[in-house]
Amino acid sequence: MQDIYDYVDQHAQSYIADLQRLLRQPSVAAQSVGMEACAGLVEEMLAGVGARPRQVDTRGGFPVVYGEIAGATTKTLSFYNHYDVQPADPLDLWESDPWAAEIRAGRLWARGCSDNKGNIAARIAAVDAYQRVRGQLPLSVKFIIEGEEEIGSPHLEHFAEDHPDLCRADACIWEFGGKDIDARPIVHLGLKGICYVELRVKGARMDQHSSIATSVPNPAWRLAWALASLKGPDERVLIPGFYDKVVPPTDEELVALERMPDTESQRLEHLGVPGFLLGLSGMELKKRDYFEPTCTISGIESGYTGEGSKTVLPSRAMAKVDMRLVLDQDPEEIFALLRAHLDAQGFDDIESILLGPERPARTPMSAPIARVVVDTYRELHGQEPVVTPTSAGSGPWYQLCSRFGIDACTAGVGHARSQAHAPNENIYVDDFIRGIKHICTIMDRFAAEPA
Amino acid sequence: MQDIYDYVDQHAQSYIADLQRLLRQPSVAAQSVGMEACAGLVEEMLAGVGARPRQVDTRGGFPVVYGEIAGATTKTLSFYNHYDVQPADPLDLWESDPWAAEIRAGRLWARGCSDNKGNIAARIAAVDAYQRVRGQLPLSVKFIIEGEEEIGSPHLEHFAEDHPDLCRADACIWEFGGKDIDARPIVHLGLKGICYVELRVKGARMDQHSSIATSVPNPAWRLAWALASLKGPDERVLIPGFYDKVVPPTDEELVALERMPDTESQRLEHLGVPGFLLGLSGMELKKRDYFEPTCTISGIESGYTGEGSKTVLPSRAMAKVDMRLVLDQDPEEIFALLRAHLDAQGFDDIESILLGPERPARTPMSAPIARVVVDTYRELHGQEPVVTPTSAGSGPWYQLCSRFGIDACTAGVGHARSQAHAPNENIYVDDFIRGIKHICTIMDRFAAEPA
Repeated sequence: MQDIYDYVDQHAQSYIADLQRLLRQPSVAAQSVGMEACAGLVEEMLAGVGARPRQVDTRGGFPVVYGEIAGATTKTLSFYNHYDVQPADPLDLWESDPWAAEIRAGRLWARGCSDNKGNIAARIAAVDAYQRVRGQLPLSVKFIIEGEEEIGSPHLEHFAEDHPDLCRADACIWEFGGKDIDARPIVHLGLKGICYVELRVKGARMDQHSSIATSVPNPAWRLAWALASLKGPDERVLIPGFYDKVVPPTDEELVALERMPDTESQRLEHLGVPGFLLGLSGMELKKRDYFEPTCTISGIESGYTGEGSKTVLPSRAMAKVDMRLVLDQDPEEIFALLRAHLDAQGFDDIESILLGPERPARTPMSAPIARVVVDTYRELHGQEPVVTPTSAGSGPWYQLCSRFGIDACTAGVGHARSQAHAPNENIYVDDFIRGIKHICTIMDRFAAEPA
Repeated sequence: MQDIYDYVDQHAQSYIADLQRLLRQPSVAAQSVGMEACAGLVEEMLAGVGARPRQVDTRGGFPVVYGEIAGATTKTLSFYNHYDVQPADPLDLWESDPWAAEIRAGRLWARGCSDNKGNIAARIAAVDAYQRVRGQLPLSVKFIIEGEEEIGSPHLEHFAEDHPDLCRADACIWEFGGKDIDARPIVHLGLKGICYVELRVKGARMDQHSSIATSVPNPAWRLAWALASLKGPDERVLIPGFYDKVVPPTDEELVALERMPDTESQRLEHLGVPGFLLGLSGMELKKRDYFEPTCTISGIESGYTGEGSKTVLPSRAMAKVDMRLVLDQDPEEIFALLRAHLDAQGFDDIESILLGPERPARTPMSAPIARVVVDTYRELHGQEPVVTPTSAGSGPWYQLCSRFGIDACTAGVGHARSQAHAPNENIYVDDFIRGIKHICTIMDRFAAEPA
């Protein structure tokens, strides 16, 4: 592979410039900002490597940018990515403009560089480099680059239903990946599901003077009580039936957890918190991180939140609740259980809206693509990769892969302090270049695997 | 008094224009907006009626604008007002610019017109009219116009301590007043106290991806649980000792409550809610409104609150809690009980900040100023006024009056749908003119009361 690695090194500046161009195009699906322009830019980048791209309608959502290249065999590796990114706020906490893609101290700083435009650019660059040096890819590739991952991929199901032919592949490289807090490569073989719900409560017709709070309903109280009914300080979710379908880890998965290195003190230092929830550590902490569902307040708002005091009785309250699910929890079912719980607790005045449900999914630890990714990570980084049965994150792995029997696996250019979804998102420039080489090697090695 | 009333009617346009000028000067103490300019404007208005005004330092707060006029006797009536107003947000709910002081359909619409620049302007106009027609006021008057009422009068205590001579009076007309929901004059003889607290919680150093919520503390949850520990859906405050000093209504006060008209259906219609809290009505509702303390979430904020979903684990959470107190609850003591409760419940990670404490206060129902205000209201409006032992609102009544043995009483130009503290604050122009005449008559009658 040295010929290809040399080519990548010689053209590093150009590949970095392509990535910066992609990062400088905002594309926030949650706010419908820059989405069309970004889809067009991704299409242009795919066209540049001969992937004959097109935008595929998703029945109501932002389009999927799809491209494919026939290689030396019909064996096919797909790349799942997304061109949308998280909102950049709170802007005042960024050290440089989130849309400037500035390079400082060996890192590139921009919203979406880690999650996941760095991976889009690395994969397109890898296909470019391989073809320039060898003339042809060793296998066929597909790019499935959606525009709604950060809002829960609400229309990717339509894409998968309408175009199973475009989804079919022998394996899939998932959208993210990178290094753990000790800079070891980390490979995830699954995702948690998600049930993201907005709760809304109404009170009086408009905000009132707080002096009448003796007798007028306060939606902020309703919301606080409803939230407190979902989970208590012992962190146990109180929605009846919530845990019923949770599958405990298998012996093989527990062994994988045991092998994972201890990164607790680094993580605590990074987070700036004195300890983990419930005082957990060791295997108990790992089991909780990888095999337990969550119920998280991601946002809450009501009344006056500015400086000083305003004596107001709010007329509206809103919360966003993010529940991460594990096998075999079903997000639609969890949403129904939540609704039933709210009603049973007397909170039928609280409106609930399901935003972007996703099912949990896992790839067998013995899958060929998992072996290829782990082996090539080891070779390129000179370190034994950490393999986890699942990521703590979520995505449409089930929709796009598991339902078609496709094994998926992560491989990407991020790292543990990449600050995905937070201010000062960043990747190391060296990781981006190595990530390009990694994808080249994965294509080469997976093509050579026996069918 | 007809001579003075005629003068007021002839000069109504000029008095209205003076009020509009005052309203067009924003003065939001909570945001330090326009305060200096507004204090200067009030000073100018007082100088215009010969009140020799000056700005009195309050040791760290916005100044009190003080003025006085010696009249025919040394008997003194003071006017307590405030030149600060509530923030105007949410701006999108206003039907006209809150700082434009537009007149539409017989009403004047502006932030602060009811609370309480309309009363400042009416009282200055009354002093002007009385002097123009009769040459001299029938008694001495003092204007004490502070700049921090809407943020809990945090420095008025300093003013009262440093200048007891400026506070001394035979009676005080309080800053607000007006008509009830049936357009009957309503007189309040007291105020509730207030203990307004901001709660703040910190989690990780910065917002995180919500996937790590399995093991990282979430300040939004901490806050939701802490709030739910303060009060449950039965509306009973759960802070130990909170109710210990609550004085039940006296028989005389219960009689006053019985006499108050039934305005429940009008209030419900105005609020747009199906019923009052706990299904209360009649005397139970009145007792709760006038003699029970409250615990209100006035604001809450954490994490992502924009459109759609953002899967974030917040690093900060904040709530504003507004507790209205009744005799003999002490706000400093209630704050200490709250702190002790939070610590006892394991919420020692939650910071609490006391903003603007105020003690409850009441004037005896038999006080001369009460009789004068009630009688003159009856004469000017042709209706029997409603007399309440206390307002449900709060203010520095204790600081400025009760501590000096001064009887205070409300009299003002507002009405039940004035929307104080809310969008579309308004007063009737006719009420403003009648309010000027009312103050003239109160001065005249109170001067004639036997000492």
